[in-house]
Order: sequence, then structure tokens, then C-alpha cells
Amino acid sequence: MTPNPDWVRKLTPAGVQGTELLAKERASSNIDVDQLAEFLFTKEALDKRERILQILVKDPVFDKSQNYFQGREERIKASLAKAKRLRQLSVEHSWTQDEYMCANDFLSEPTPYGLHASMFLVTLREQGTPEQHMLFLDKAEKYQIIGCYAQTELGHGSNVRGLETTATWNQNDKTFTLHSPHLTSSKWWIGSLGKVANHAVVMAQLIIDGKNYGPHPFVVQIRDLKTHEPLENIHVGDIGPKFGYNTMDNGFLLLNQVKVPHVNMLARFSRVDPQTGRYVRPKNPNLVYGTLTFIRSSIVLQSGSVLARGVTIATRYCAVRRQFQDLDAPKGKDKEGSDTGENQVLNYTMVQVRLLPLLAATFALHFTGQGMIRMYQENQKRMASAHRGAGDDANRRPGPEELNPGTDLLADLHATSCALKAYSSTTAAEGLEVCRRACGGHGYSSFSGIGSWYADYLPTVTWEGDNYMLSQQVCRYLLKSARAVVAGKAPDNDTSRILKTYLARRDTGAAFDFLASDADVVDAFAWRVAHLTFEALQRRDADRQPWNNLLVDFHRLSTAHAQYIAVKSFHDALSNPSSSTTATADVSRLDPTTVGVLHTLFRLFALHTLEREASEFFASGAATVRQISLARRAVMRLLAEVRPHAVRLVDAWRFPDWQLDSSLGRHDGRVYEDMFYRASELNPLNRVVFDPYPDSGVLFKKDERARSKL
Amino acid sequence: MTPNPDWVRKLTPAGVQGTELLAKERASSNIDVDQLAEFLFTKEALDKRERILQILVKDPVFDKSQNYFQGREERIKASLAKAKRLRQLSVEHSWTQDEYMCANDFLSEPTPYGLHASMFLVTLREQGTPEQHMLFLDKAEKYQIIGCYAQTELGHGSNVRGLETTATWNQNDKTFTLHSPHLTSSKWWIGSLGKVANHAVVMAQLIIDGKNYGPHPFVVQIRDLKTHEPLENIHVGDIGPKFGYNTMDNGFLLLNQVKVPHVNMLARFSRVDPQTGRYVRPKNPNLVYGTLTFIRSSIVLQSGSVLARGVTIATRYCAVRRQFQDLDAPKGKDKEGSDTGENQVLNYTMVQVRLLPLLAATFALHFTGQGMIRMYQENQKRMASAHRGAGDDANRRPGPEELNPGTDLLADLHATSCALKAYSSTTAAEGLEVCRRACGGHGYSSFSGIGSWYADYLPTVTWEGDNYMLSQQVCRYLLKSARAVVAGKAPDNDTSRILKTYLARRDTGAAFDFLASDADVVDAFAWRVAHLTFEALQRRDADRQPWNNLLVDFHRLSTAHAQYIAVKSFHDALSNPSSSTTATADVSRLDPTTVGVLHTLFRLFALHTLEREASEFFASGAATVRQISLARRAVMRLLAEVRPHAVRLVDAWRFPDWQLDSSLGRHDGRVYEDMFYRASELNPLNRVVFDPYPDSGVLFKKDERARSKL
Repeated sequence: MTPNPDWVRKLTPAGVQGTELLAKERASSNIDVDQLAEFLFTKEALDKRERILQILVKDPVFDKSQNYFQGREERIKASLAKAKRLRQLSVEHSWTQDEYMCANDFLSEPTPYGLHASMFLVTLREQGTPEQHMLFLDKAEKYQIIGCYAQTELGHGSNVRGLETTATWNQNDKTFTLHSPHLTSSKWWIGSLGKVANHAVVMAQLIIDGKNYGPHPFVVQIRDLKTHEPLENIHVGDIGPKFGYNTMDNGFLLLNQVKVPHVNMLARFSRVDPQTGRYVRPKNPNLVYGTLTFIRSSIVLQSGSVLARGVTIATRYCAVRRQFQDLDAPKGKDKEGSDTGENQVLNYTMVQVRLLPLLAATFALHFTGQGMIRMYQENQKRMASAHRGAGDDANRRPGPEELNPGTDLLADLHATSCALKAYSSTTAAEGLEVCRRACGGHGYSSFSGIGSWYADYLPTVTWEGDNYMLSQQVCRYLLKSARAVVAGKAPDNDTSRILKTYLARRDTGAAFDFLASDADVVDAFAWRVAHLTFEALQRRDADRQPWNNLLVDFHRLSTAHAQYIAVKSFHDALSNPSSSTTATADVSRLDPTTVGVLHTLFRLFALHTLEREASEFFASGAATVRQISLARRAVMRLLAEVRPHAVRLVDAWRFPDWQLDSSLGRHDGRVYEDMFYRASELNPLNRVVFDPYPDSGVLFKKDERARSKL
Repeated sequence: MTPNPDWVRKLTPAGVQGTELLAKERASSNIDVDQLAEFLFTKEALDKRERILQILVKDPVFDKSQNYFQGREERIKASLAKAKRLRQLSVEHSWTQDEYMCANDFLSEPTPYGLHASMFLVTLREQGTPEQHMLFLDKAEKYQIIGCYAQTELGHGSNVRGLETTATWNQNDKTFTLHSPHLTSSKWWIGSLGKVANHAVVMAQLIIDGKNYGPHPFVVQIRDLKTHEPLENIHVGDIGPKFGYNTMDNGFLLLNQVKVPHVNMLARFSRVDPQTGRYVRPKNPNLVYGTLTFIRSSIVLQSGSVLARGVTIATRYCAVRRQFQDLDAPKGKDKEGSDTGENQVLNYTMVQVRLLPLLAATFALHFTGQGMIRMYQENQKRMASAHRGAGDDANRRPGPEELNPGTDLLADLHATSCALKAYSSTTAAEGLEVCRRACGGHGYSSFSGIGSWYADYLPTVTWEGDNYMLSQQVCRYLLKSARAVVAGKAPDNDTSRILKTYLARRDTGAAFDFLASDADVVDAFAWRVAHLTFEALQRRDADRQPWNNLLVDFHRLSTAHAQYIAVKSFHDALSNPSSSTTATADVSRLDPTTVGVLHTLFRLFALHTLEREASEFFASGAATVRQISLARRAVMRLLAEVRPHAVRLVDAWRFPDWQLDSSLGRHDGRVYEDMFYRASELNPLNRVVFDPYPDSGVLFKKDERARSKL
């Protein structure tokens, strides 16, 4: 690219260099970063990451230097190349699924293989029979066929029962006819479908003899295995550019009376008897229940590090960036007239109050996600042992209504995963935008590395249950629990416990000493949930309010529930080492300084949340006006306590520069050098000379860009 | 592009068509859309718009069909072509500046001429002498030279006094040497600089005899007028891609001891005497004060329509989109098994509560902006008459401290413009994202038309005063006013009035009947501002808190102040026709239905805001817990009242489809047809056939795209 002239190459940033500033930050805190990182992730996981990173950074296919400059077509082409190489490396190094996902994390972009490697394989595996595994799964695992999971339609997203695509059983030739009756039946948003897949699992309404049996999965070949052109009566393509996620070929698909053989209906749980043409009921209608809970739990766990990435970038940059002097500090000028001793932006309380509660939230979300996964795994274990040898399919996962409410976690688990998925992904997405703005003007540059990350993450608030829709499922469960508590038939779980506690004290009121006691903070959050639950119960059951009138209250309640779980999980992670029954490290192994800072982060997270939701704490009687006012002051003090540790705390998240791909978030603080290098040397637009005059009839006077590699 | 096969072309969306749904919506309200549009904009302005629109839509240069598909380099090239054509049309049709801006609004993208046509011309005009006008301005107005305004640097944004670029006076040859001493001195973010400008007004520290006189403006030629290559010792280029605004060539600029003649320092207000080398003090140090106030006022006025664009798209789409049945409604299936009678998404309260308060906010912001502009103009008039013939330069705008506080509006105007700029741009930006999410999954598609609009608007929260920084200026004024009120020396203005009212009643408390009385709503907002002001005064003056400790409180106070002005402006626009001293239409000319709906929108805006900020209303004693709880219910009722008028209300904003460029927001409701058309027929990626196999060594099997036109 254009080399900078000599006199430019000699220039350095003014004043104290970023490298020195970050070194000073790191010196001013004695948090043991390695120890904390191991507490968060385990040493084994960190070692694995490092091993994989070293493989990736050496490979020119994964070069990121043009990512921010490329248009969509160049980017998706480059992403396909990366996906292919990743698959080759995966074979070469015999990566586990976990290691493959780790490599994907480092790339930090969805690739066109994304849905093949996840939903297509998972669906074939979980919903296919052994015969179907041989027919489809084996080839798919070897990438001899590439697939996707086609559920959402142009006219139907959340409402799966409303899907329009039909699969009609033909008894005469034992086939199904798949058909898209309307334009709105077109499959839409389907990842990996647009350009890459040659197969799709199509969710379609199963019709036998004119009767509809609801949506079922069908394997449909959509493109020729050689030419990769669409097969006859199939119209398939890419749905076009999006706000983000542009390295993925989200696609559309219309089917015009396309026949597939009987074996193409995935038949592990329900099927059509080919002899009689009769529908055989699913062995387990709640299969998806478990799978979706797992996917949501994973979203909760990821949300912490998703947000931590933005917090890392913003925190480091705000420690390097200096602007203005403190208004109360003495003034001075250096000989060139610049203000001397400008203040690090991170020292301003207006920056701290935006950034440091998010830093605290990264830990809260991480511990909450770990708790969620643990809860999921415990439930899997209990169900497996409870039902093993009971004559059932060993892999069968029973629905909640069949189980003893005293021992089963599934309903609670489901509701909690819905509430937390909505809360954690909203917190992460909105938090990333706060981080971007906290970087001031430069946050808007692509080189900040936050914008594209935010844009790619945004669909998470919509998929796997729209965050606004999910709250209904949470509240349905909470209402049911409240009714059970009132009726004295409640199962023995935490939700029942907090509802009972509230009922027992409703007429005496509560006095939570949440400014002095961490346990009381948790209790205050629980009290608010219980209060809102019984308020909603009153409106639904006694006042007979229509469901639609309650949706706004439900969303509040769901959020309150999620915040309670998050506060409780953070508290548990720090105070209750015996509860760590799985891989989570024991907090008692950390040095006292680090534990102390984590406690400060806990209080910051809890009190900041409480203060932002103050009116519900007032209204429920969980807090007084005076306490809220004091909580505000407490938050300001906690910010000051966290401030010196901020850079080390983000270091513990261990994002390598290669992954962040951010000028502002560099570990070494060479922010301005990197901004300038990318702008002046990597930017292809600077190889073009414009013609500036309105009447010249020419736009580019000179164009030295290499021909597009696309 | 790829034509759709016959069987695809015959498909229509399922169920009731979007066109019918929107027609039904429009039939269910009797708001007079034309009348309301004229009330908002005046008939003359609407006619002008229509005239200009017709010129643009006919011109192939302005074709928008590839906008969402193009990469940055293609887009900026296309944008340059549009900018050139706009300039030609402007000459051809003798457009006023206002008409030219209107054409730009319809394009809805920044063009590379953007900063030439605004800040470069304005700065030359306002800060140049007649001699400099001849030398620079005349050529610039004829586009013989193209310029930009280079203030911000890589290391300095908000803090103008901290700029590093120097301009050192050389007495011997009567020149200035412009120099960038550090890498961080590089001008950065400068619109139109990157590729188009051949001149720049460079803000640099003026150094005479080693003494620094602060930042001053210098005209510097940076590129050759013929070859358009950078001149010697000048390093200039584009700063690279951004989150949005990618049709603008924001640039960087480094100067290596570049000499310019004496005449190149813009000298209308301060100058260097070329004979003596002495600095001549500015006649008016507060010039920028007035200009910035005007720019901020314009941002306030625009914010209403910026947001209205997203609200228009989301409201129309949510009226067309149907999903799920009402849970309390009876269920049914049609013969294909789809749920019948799915509910329009706009009927769900969870959608209404997100969208309709924003619809109300568009009107609030619009009336607030009109009020702000009116206040600005009144002040200009007063100052002109007060100072005319006083021996001063007739164009001089005096600073606030020189004026009689009893008659002058300037300080109040400045503070109000700061508070409202921050509040209105944050409301618009964040509101657009709420609109995008209210569109569900399809909001994420570029074809929604919201994402790119949001991304392009985002810098507004940072430029012309970062929204978080501005609050300090607001609070400095409010504290000063409070001190004046306490001292009994307050000027006669609204701020003093609300502070006095509060003081007078502080010991008796307040009882605002805001659920029944609109005037009481306004008073409750005023009370909260006054309460927070005196609280801040106590902390700063009595408790001697450092400024930095108060920034968070200040931001709250500034927001409260802006919300008060917005609520008051909305109220005034509906209740006080005699206050309309300027172009604003008289509400009494509207039909009673429309006026009634506007009153409902006022209450919705005010009570929804009040409820969201509930804890401050509690804490200040402006509201009781019970009232807030009732306000929540009132908001739900108001949503139901606004609902039937939603589509007509957005129609009144009069965005032509060509401007919206949105599948979801089409006036005719043909949402799905348009989505499908753009995806399948306009999408260049669908002219490429991928190779899907990891080991094939090929990425694209076939590529039928025309060679890039770039």
C-alpha cells in the first residue's frame, strides 16, 4: 500500500505514550491476572486456546488486515475460504467440537459453514434414525454434503406453528411432496442456505389425508452435488445484506411440489408408517424443550465474554486517551501551548459510571452462565438416573409434567433459561454500544473493533426466542409457581422459596439492609420478584385481565427475575465454594486482593442495577427512598474502588490482540500508531485519486488498487 | 439480474394482503393527514419538497437500487457522482441553500461535498475579511476550490484548546508555518478532507514570538488544483471505514512545516498585524457561541424527523405483520393448517409500549425544535436591535456577560440548546434502534432501511458537543441561575421562575395532579429540575464536592432539564396559539379529532417519560408511589387510544417511499413482495455460484456479475 513519507514515520503521539500509561495501570493493581483468568476459565481451557491461536495466526488464509475494508461479496468469499481451511485444520489436528468452536471464536465472524457445523449436524444426529444417520449424517460429518436448518419463513418467525410450508404424504408412491403455497412461505434467514448448502432440513407442516400433524423435519436436497446449481422447482438464494452477519449466506428457499422419499422425514421421534400411511406419535414431544434450554444456556454463558470484549477495548482506550484537565486541578501549558497533564478519560466519573458497571456485569453474566450450564447438567444427570432401566428409551428426556415436582428441575430450568437468555443478551448487546460510545469519536471508526462485533451479535436478541416474547414463558411459569405456593402444593425449589418467604412477610413488610449486607442485596432482589409475581397473579386471576394487557408487566417481571438470578449467581460464586460441584474453580484458591475486588464488583453490579430499577424497589417496599439515594452514593464510591484495577480486570478475560482486531483495545496501548497505520497504509481508498470538480465528468482521476481479488 | 421462475412470480403473500391491512388502518382513523402535515411543516415547505423530489427521482444518477449491496468504495464513488449532479441541479434550478439541503435530505446519505457546502463556506463567510472572501469564498462558492473544516485531531476531539497543530508567525517573510509536531496532531475525522478537498480551514495554535494565542483558523491549500495530488510536505488521506457515514471521505492531514501567506489566516475577528507582528485581539470572542447554538438548535429540530423515519417504517410494518393469535381469542386452523386470524403485531401491548411513545416523541421533538429555533431567532432580533448603531460592527454578536441579564436570552439559549441537543439526539438515535428491533428479525435486514439510517445518524450524539460533555455546560448555567435566585438577582426568565417557585414551596411540598391536569404535568417536570438543581448546588457549594464527583448528577440534571423543556414545548404548541410568533401554524386551525389525538400524544409522551424516570419524581416529592403506579396504567390506556391513529399519524410525516428506501416501511404495505424482489432480483451475490466443499481448492464455481463498475 501507500508508504508514509519519512517525516511522517518519525512522528510519535504527544505526551505520555499509551504503552507507558497501560504499564502504569498494570503496576497500580496487584490483582493476579493469571490466577483470575484460570478461575474464570480453568488452566486447561486457557492452554487449549493458546495452542489453537498459534495455529491460526500463522495461516495467511486467516489474515484479518482487510476485514474492515472489504464489501460484502469480498468478505463472504474470504469467509468461505476461512471456513474451508478451518475444516481442514480440524481434520488435520483431530479437533474436538469444542476446539473447533474455540477456533471459530478467534476468527470472530460467522462463516458460511456455520449452520452446517451446528444445527444441521445436531438435527440429523438427534432426530434421525440409525438408517438416516448412515444416509445423511455420515456424509454431512465428512462435508460430502453441506446442509442447513430451514425453519423460519418470510412471514413467520417466532410462531413455529404458523409455518406455511407443507409436506404432504403420498401413500401411492410413499413419498412426501414439499411445497411453498405462498410468497410468505419462503424459508428466510436460513444460515448457510443462501450459497453453500446443497441440503436442508426443512420444517414443514405434515399433511396426511388432508389432516395437519404440525411441523416436522424433512431432509431435502436443494442443489446439484456437482454443479451446485439449484435443482428443478427449487428457488434458492441469498437474502441480501444485513446490519451485520454479512459473512454468512442467510438464504431463502421456495419449493414447488418437490418430492422426497419416505426416508427423508427424520423419524426418531415421530414418523409415518409407510405401509398404512398412519402417523406414529412422537415418543417424546418435549425433546426440543431440552435442546432449546441448552442453546439458551450457552447464550447466557457467552454473553459475559461477548460484553467483556467491548469492555476490554473501551477500558484500555479510556486509560490511554487523555482529554481536558480536571476542572479543580491547577492549569498549565507546555511550550507548544498544549494543555499539560490532561486527565485519562477513565478518571472521569461520567466515563466510570458507564464502563465499570459493565465490567462488573461481565463477571456477573459469566458466573450466571456457569450456574445455568451446571443446573442444566445436573438436571440431565438426574433425569438419566431416574429413568435408566425404566423400559424407556435411555436417551429420552421426559417433559416436566410427567415428573415429580419435588425432584425435577426442568420447568424451573426452562423458565430460568428463558429469562436469562433475554436479559443477558440484551445486557451484552446494549452494553457493547455503551462501550463504543465511551470511546468517543474513535468508537465510531471500524478500527475500534466494537461496531462490527456489536452488529454481528445483535441477532442474538431476536433468535432462539425473541427477548420480548420469552418473557411470557417466564411469567407463565412464575404464575403457575405462585398458584402452587398459594395452594400449598409447591415443589421444593428456589422459586417456591422466595415466593413463600414473601407471602409469609407480606403483612409485616421487609427491611433489607442491602447497603451493609451482601446477603440482604440478594434478598431484596428476591422480594421484588415475588412482589411483582403476586401483583401479576392478582391482575390475571382476580382482576381477569386479558393476557395482552399484561405483556408489559410480564416483561418487567421477567427482567426482575433474571436480575435476581444474576445477583444470586454472582453472590454464590464468591461466597459458597461448596456449591461448585463442577469444573468451576474454587474462589478460596484466589488471593485475598482479587477476592476483595470481586466482592466490590459484586456490590457495584447489584447496587447499580438496584438503583437503575429503583422505582420497582420502592413500589415493592424492598427499599426506601433514602436507601436508594444512599445506594447512588455507594455506587460512586465503588467506582472509585474498582478504578485502579480496571485494566488488570479486563486483562483477565485474556483476549489476544489478534482476536480483538482493534486499534483502541491493543494490549500494548499503541492506539494512535495503529489507527494511523490502518488508515494510511491498509486503506485501499487511499490508492485512488478523486476528481473533485462538479462539471468534470470524471469521478476517479487515478486508480492504483489491484484488481479486486473477488 | 436473475429473473424469478414463472411459478415463483405467481406467488402472493398468505392471508390478508399488506395493502388491504394498511388501507383498513387508514380507514379506521379520521385524522386529516394533509392538514396535520401542513401544521407540522407548512404547505409551502411541502410543495417545495414535492417539486424537488420529482427532479431527483427522474435522474438515474440518484438510483438507489444498489445502495444496500455496494461496498464502501463503490458507495463513495456513487455518492460523489450524486454530489456533483446535485451541485449541477442546484445551479440549473437556482436552488436556495434550503432547497439544496432538502434535496440532500431526500438522498439521505452524506456526500463528499458535505463539509464543503456547510462548514467550509460558512467559516470563510463568517470569519473571512472582504479581501479573503474575494480570494477564497468566491471560488469556493463556484466549486473552483473544494474545502473542508479541519479542527479535530487524532488525539483531541472535545478539547479544542488542547489542539496540537501549530501556526507560527514568521515576521521576516510575513508568513505562517503550519506544522504537526506529533502523530496525534494529525487532523482526523475531517469530512470531505479524505479524498475531495483541495483546501482546508485548519484550526491551529497561533504562535507569535514563542507565545501561544490559542486556536485560530488558517486556509491551507492541500492538493494540486490540476492533478489533485497532495502538495509537498502534506500527508492527507481517508481515515477508513466507519460504523456508518461511509459515503463521506472523513480524512486525516499532517503538515510538515508548511508555509502560508499572511492573508491565509481568517482575520475578521482577530489577526496578526503584518507590520509589527503583533496580535490584534478579537472584536468578538463569542462569535462561535452563536453559531454553535444555531447548529445545536438545528440538530434538535431535525431529531423529530430523524426518529419519525424509523417510527414510520416500524409502525407500517407492525400493522402489516401478523404473528400468533391473541392468547385469549378462540383458535382455528385453515385447510393448510396455518393458524387463521393471526394478530397484527401492532395490537400487542409489548409492541405498542415500545413504538407509540416514540411516535409521541417525534412530535415532542419537532415542536421542541421549532421552539428552539424560534427562541434563537428572537434572540438574534433582540441583539440586532439593541446594538444597532452603537458604533459596533453591525454583525457583531455580543457574549452573555456583556448583556443585561434582564433582557437577554443568550445564556439561557445556550444552556437550553446544549441540554436539548444531548437529549434529542440520544432519544432519536436510541429510538431508531428500538424501532429496528420492533420489526423483529426483518429489522436486521438492510432492506428495513432503519439500520443504515441509524448508523449514519449515530455520530450526532458525539459531534457538536459530546452528549455527555454538554451536560456540564447546562449545569454550570443552572447552578449560576440558582445562585442568582438565592441572591435575589435572578434575570426574568423561565429558568429563574421555576427555581423561585420551588424555593417558595420547598417547605410546604408540592401536590401535582398530573394524571388529571396537563398543566400540572409540566409543573411536575419543572419541580424535578429545580429539586435536582438545588441538590447539586448544595453538593457543589456547601459540601464542596469536586467537580468530577458531580458529573453523574449533572448528567441526570441536564436530562431532566431537557425533558422539562420538551414537555413544556409540546404543551405550548397545543395550548397557546398566541405564542406562535413565527412560521409555526396555529393549532386552532386543526380539526378537533386531530387536536384530540395530539393531546393524547402529549400525555403519552409526558407520562411515559415520567414513569421511566419515576425514582427522581419520587425522590423530589413531585409524585407519590401511588401516582406512579397509576401513571403506568394511564400509559396503557393512552396506548390503546393512540393505536387506531398510528398509521395516519406516521403518514403525516410525509416520507416518500423513495426517501425511506425500505421494504418494511412501504406506504402501500407490499412488504414481502419488496423484500423478495430485492433479495432475489437485485442481489448481486445471487449471480455467483459457490463451491461448497472444503477440499476443492475453488471458492466460486461461476461468477456472472458484471465487472465492478468502480
